[in-house]
Amino acid sequence: MSQFDKHAATLDAAIEAVGSRRAWSAYADSPALHPSGPDGQIAGAAAFAAMLGRPAPLTQPGTLVTQTVEVSPYTGESLAIAYPRTDPGDLLARSLAGAQQWSRAAAEVRVGVCLEILERLYLRNFEFQAASVHTTGMSLGMAYTGNGTNALDRGLEALAHAHLAMSRVTPSATWERRFGTDSSTLTKRYSLMPRGVAVAIACASFPAWNTYPALMASLATGNPVIVKPHPSSVIMLAMAVQTCREVIEEAGFDPDLVTLAVDGPEAPIAVALVEDPRCGIVDFTGSPRFGGWLETHLPRTLVFTETAGVNPVVLDSVDDLARVTRTIAGGLCLFSAQMCTSPQNIYLPREGVRTATGQATYDEVVESLLEAIEAIVGAPRRAAALLGAIQADVTERVAARAGSGARLLRRGTAYEHPEYPSARTRKPMVAEVEIDDSGLCDEEQFGPNVFIVPVDDSATGLSRAAGTAKTHGAIASYVYSTDDGFLDAADEAFLDAGANLTANSVGPMPMNFSAAYSDYHVSGLNPAGTATLTDEAFIAGRFRIVQSRRQI
Amino acid sequence: MSQFDKHAATLDAAIEAVGSRRAWSAYADSPALHPSGPDGQIAGAAAFAAMLGRPAPLTQPGTLVTQTVEVSPYTGESLAIAYPRTDPGDLLARSLAGAQQWSRAAAEVRVGVCLEILERLYLRNFEFQAASVHTTGMSLGMAYTGNGTNALDRGLEALAHAHLAMSRVTPSATWERRFGTDSSTLTKRYSLMPRGVAVAIACASFPAWNTYPALMASLATGNPVIVKPHPSSVIMLAMAVQTCREVIEEAGFDPDLVTLAVDGPEAPIAVALVEDPRCGIVDFTGSPRFGGWLETHLPRTLVFTETAGVNPVVLDSVDDLARVTRTIAGGLCLFSAQMCTSPQNIYLPREGVRTATGQATYDEVVESLLEAIEAIVGAPRRAAALLGAIQADVTERVAARAGSGARLLRRGTAYEHPEYPSARTRKPMVAEVEIDDSGLCDEEQFGPNVFIVPVDDSATGLSRAAGTAKTHGAIASYVYSTDDGFLDAADEAFLDAGANLTANSVGPMPMNFSAAYSDYHVSGLNPAGTATLTDEAFIAGRFRIVQSRRQI
Repeated sequence: MSQFDKHAATLDAAIEAVGSRRAWSAYADSPALHPSGPDGQIAGAAAFAAMLGRPAPLTQPGTLVTQTVEVSPYTGESLAIAYPRTDPGDLLARSLAGAQQWSRAAAEVRVGVCLEILERLYLRNFEFQAASVHTTGMSLGMAYTGNGTNALDRGLEALAHAHLAMSRVTPSATWERRFGTDSSTLTKRYSLMPRGVAVAIACASFPAWNTYPALMASLATGNPVIVKPHPSSVIMLAMAVQTCREVIEEAGFDPDLVTLAVDGPEAPIAVALVEDPRCGIVDFTGSPRFGGWLETHLPRTLVFTETAGVNPVVLDSVDDLARVTRTIAGGLCLFSAQMCTSPQNIYLPREGVRTATGQATYDEVVESLLEAIEAIVGAPRRAAALLGAIQADVTERVAARAGSGARLLRRGTAYEHPEYPSARTRKPMVAEVEIDDSGLCDEEQFGPNVFIVPVDDSATGLSRAAGTAKTHGAIASYVYSTDDGFLDAADEAFLDAGANLTANSVGPMPMNFSAAYSDYHVSGLNPAGTATLTDEAFIAGRFRIVQSRRQI
Repeated sequence: MSQFDKHAATLDAAIEAVGSRRAWSAYADSPALHPSGPDGQIAGAAAFAAMLGRPAPLTQPGTLVTQTVEVSPYTGESLAIAYPRTDPGDLLARSLAGAQQWSRAAAEVRVGVCLEILERLYLRNFEFQAASVHTTGMSLGMAYTGNGTNALDRGLEALAHAHLAMSRVTPSATWERRFGTDSSTLTKRYSLMPRGVAVAIACASFPAWNTYPALMASLATGNPVIVKPHPSSVIMLAMAVQTCREVIEEAGFDPDLVTLAVDGPEAPIAVALVEDPRCGIVDFTGSPRFGGWLETHLPRTLVFTETAGVNPVVLDSVDDLARVTRTIAGGLCLFSAQMCTSPQNIYLPREGVRTATGQATYDEVVESLLEAIEAIVGAPRRAAALLGAIQADVTERVAARAGSGARLLRRGTAYEHPEYPSARTRKPMVAEVEIDDSGLCDEEQFGPNVFIVPVDDSATGLSRAAGTAKTHGAIASYVYSTDDGFLDAADEAFLDAGANLTANSVGPMPMNFSAAYSDYHVSGLNPAGTATLTDEAFIAGRFRIVQSRRQI
């Protein structure tokens, strides 16, 4: 049975889900449902532990260099894993060696290989979980899903779109037409051709969630892929690349169709990779600075970016204030707000907000939010499970800078992690900022940094939040109102801003949860980026159609 | 009945055709089948004649300026039609005035308006025919199809793709999922949002063929469109814009959703239009120089270009030499090779080519081709019907320059037009060029300029032709061989070059005919451009999806 046939039911279900956008998942979020059974987590952790201080298990040639900057946010120690390093030009040449064979294979063969890769990645999910914890700083629970099952679902979603897009191109046709009194008949063949080498540049905190969709979309459409991890968060992607290489080789193709490009902060190689004319596609997740450079300096390359969003919460009115502030506190704490969908600016009317039990004053709302945060961060086990650790030390400097310009309501001090005394942790800093302080309000202050912005009324908050989304970017926006008119106005304002909106989220779903197959992600209409991840525009340009017609 | 319902059968048939890629047309190529009956052509010519020397019939405000550079290639006289001129910034503001209403309308309403526009354009096809003759220089017959029915079919094709792409996005969903022991339910709305003002920049010789697909793709997906004609070929697009405005206004929308941006060569406005941040999409047909500028200077704008191709003919072996050279001569003469698919370089083995009746020497092949050309250009009525006139005087300078560097086999002198003694006409110039003369071989020499390139063998010709296609661009490539192995090798070579190939075309279909719904056009894989016109990649980025979800 072909790999495509083996996984046909999974692909069919994914196709149904991207069409209907109903809730579905191919990879269960609960570790208890993983096929490796109750010992899976222990075995996965052991497998990861065995990688430390050694060359990464990767069948890719290159000069082995120990990655000193890959440091666990929990232990503060370097993982000391060595990775092969290769000159960018050599890596591109290697990528292309097997590219013609790959591009000439039937699309279903490539899709089958990609489906098998996802399956194998899922089977290793406990290993990925352990690796994720000690690179990204996620809590154990979140690592299983955020860099595991949810990322795999996003990858399958992109693969389903790629399969659909390729399937819609008929491979051949016979064409006959009269010209005057005679007629011509031509047989036509339509071939799907790749764009070139795809370079997927990952971020440190969420290496898989954006990389898997890019990898699947590019590989399935015939492009070799070079995965370029962040220097401080390599091992997960090294493991993923190795899995790709194994599946590809088993299927009879060149394993160098997927390679890893490791660099250190002292000598970055991303620019050399993407500026090479052999590179046809770039997928990037990371800073607005480099993302902006990529968007403007590679006009002949297909570039997808996800950079930064200044995600707002607009408060108008609520039924149950405590429930809302609990939900918002959860959103502010989840993975220490190191998520692209984490809220940052909370627009709060000076007159407070209406509730089912009467008006809550401005101060009461603030107090309720601070209490809800304290309920989380004051309980070390709960804090550890929800906040995890801070991936990068630079995030602490962001907090210090952000806090220095604002009226602090709660300091962003560390919390004591119950298991890892050396963990780099941080409670959310909450500050009050005036609406005209655009230096703070209109920029992403990455990490657990929250600004409460007093506004004259909720309409002003809405207008400012939507305006900032349009001009500075937003990946997720939130509004709370019991007034349908206000919600409709919010819909219109965020539609015009080209920003996604979530209304009245009160759990149990985390407010900033983004569901594969159902939630669109980056809209591409505001500065937060162009990597829509989840629609046809993310696929369409990755392959081209070349025609051959013969007269018969 | 809505406009969408009125034209549903046409749209359905177009959808079937873009899927199956079988021969189909919504707009008959034969004037005898036009609904306006036998007097249609006379009435159309009269309607066009009535436009001369007056303000264009266009309900668009602006300062009326007589377009002095719009000169008939047949009479040498200015059409002296006055067009409204508007400051680019004002025009963009005008475009956006009704944009929100248009973007909020149901996709089917927009598609219905677009279908009605195409129908109205078809009803005026005899007027367009007359206008086309006296701007592009096409013969009467070709004007009816090349700037008429075929262009309308390409427009409908793009519209079908736009409709399909939008239809694949479900407008809403209900999403329910368990989190722990509880569950969350959200209703989700997915809105299609336009990219911004679309600017469609047309070329002088084929104003409709590329503009209609761009216009349909952008307008249907919610973007206002500014049509920017070439200063020497305005009236057809002014008429088309006016038709759009009438249909749009009848449907209750702002007619300024489609406007015309006229300039003169003394003060071009294209750069000001496309550099404005309100411009979200550019479709361009024209010179590689400006096309390249657009591709590299507007990184945040969706840019589609069709520039120049160096289209090769590779000769290996033929059944009937005379039939092949007749077909090639037809391709070289058709509209004086002012088509993006016109062949230019003929790679001919020094040993000649095999035929069913034995080897034809190099000189015999050349002689046969020259005779076939002479058979056309030596008969004034046939020449007039096939070659038409030369659109731009610059084309004559190209011929002079190209001819000066090569061994002339036949001069590119004028032929005497039987009806218009002042017509700017030109027989094909045929010259022999060495393969290493890359200045001539590797550039498009626009117009009826043909180079015969002697090669050591057909494999060398194939390799060079495919290499030039890859590095310098080709929109159409041609090969003649009776050897299946050679044809397969040609398929592989042009696949790798990312260039479309036609094998063994011997009529009655003109070799460079490109059929809507069946033939893919620009591949996007070589420097000839990125405007694929006819696939999902031409549509996907023109709209984005914005999500609103509400918890219930």
